[in-house]
Amino acid sequence: MTTVKGAGLGRDESIRRIEPGPRMSMAVVHGGTVYLAGQVARNAAGKSVAEQTRDVLAIIDGLLAEAGTDKTRLLSANIWLTDIGTFNEMNGVWDAWVAPGCTPARATVEAKLASPQYRVEIAVIAAR
Amino acid sequence: MTTVKGAGLGRDESIRRIEPGPRMSMAVVHGGTVYLAGQVARNAAGKSVAEQTRDVLAIIDGLLAEAGTDKTRLLSANIWLTDIGTFNEMNGVWDAWVAPGCTPARATVEAKLASPQYRVEIAVIAAR
Amino acid sequence: MTTVKGAGLGRDESIRRIEPGPRMSMAVVHGGTVYLAGQVARNAAGKSVAEQTRDVLAIIDGLLAEAGTDKTRLLSANIWLTDIGTFNEMNGVWDAWVAPGCTPARATVEAKLASPQYRVEIAVIAAR
Repeated sequence: MTTVKGAGLGRDESIRRIEPGPRMSMAVVHGGTVYLAGQVARNAAGKSVAEQTRDVLAIIDGLLAEAGTDKTRLLSANIWLTDIGTFNEMNGVWDAWVAPGCTPARATVEAKLASPQYRVEIAVIAAR
Repeated sequence: MTTVKGAGLGRDESIRRIEPGPRMSMAVVHGGTVYLAGQVARNAAGKSVAEQTRDVLAIIDGLLAEAGTDKTRLLSANIWLTDIGTFNEMNGVWDAWVAPGCTPARATVEAKLASPQYRVEIAVIAAR
Repeated sequence: MTTVKGAGLGRDESIRRIEPGPRMSMAVVHGGTVYLAGQVARNAAGKSVAEQTRDVLAIIDGLLAEAGTDKTRLLSANIWLTDIGTFNEMNGVWDAWVAPGCTPARATVEAKLASPQYRVEIAVIAAR
């Protein structure tokens, strides 16, 4: 985890990076906002969209916790499905996961992902 | 509309959700920033891209108003078209809608959307 | 460049727009956050994905500088490739460009872009 002080003009907010890798960080915290990288089903690759969604949302729960927040403070979500025909299957898991009254703004579209093993990717922004 | 106080470390900013549903909220306000869900043409489903874009932008105007802001304070926009060949048709409506001198950062790509009735989806972030 | 004072309730942060055009601005600064438009390879259109990625990242460096920040303060990135099979080619250039320890949250998916000359588009959010 790295923290860099800002050199902004009167905006001296630090940035905290969670699981910073050579290509991307899994999450970045700036001021009161947390940006998560698009998450795929590391542990459920090749499995059903429902299983992959459950895995992705568990990974997101973990990253939000590392950032000092949780799913009740989600602001927005982008969801990509490799087959938009799996929209309902993904939503079945999503709808059971979100906190009632605390749902984020969301957009869901179809897109091919980096590896064919992955059928859903989710990136969220949350408040701390 | 629900308001949840933050438990952040020194970041105690509330979150306000507009039209919060069991799956997503239509807009979420956090600090000075407003995140809108990806909007589709509820009232112009199945119609032309120009008509759908007009409908989407009217819906966005309404949500921005509910959030206490307007299109002069747009920060960024993501636009998805089911057929990138309709780029110019969408832009004709978009260009007439944006406030001169107040245009957001924007990215437009092709993607299949949740329902084949919808040919354009737009998600924006605005300042309050 | 235009600056508009906010009329928010106790949130009076100005917005600064960089290269504001009639359709979009190339970057928008609000508070401590900078939103860049999706950038394509203006100077390397039609060339390889590696060459286009280099061009896009150089353009991003320039816009971040205009906004008073740089790549060490990246928060998140969205990357669209017209052919996800060029993922490794794009990453070769990306990995060499990012600042060690300062990598953003990132999501990369396949999508057709506005013009077939462009094979990669990148939009970033940064802290000032």
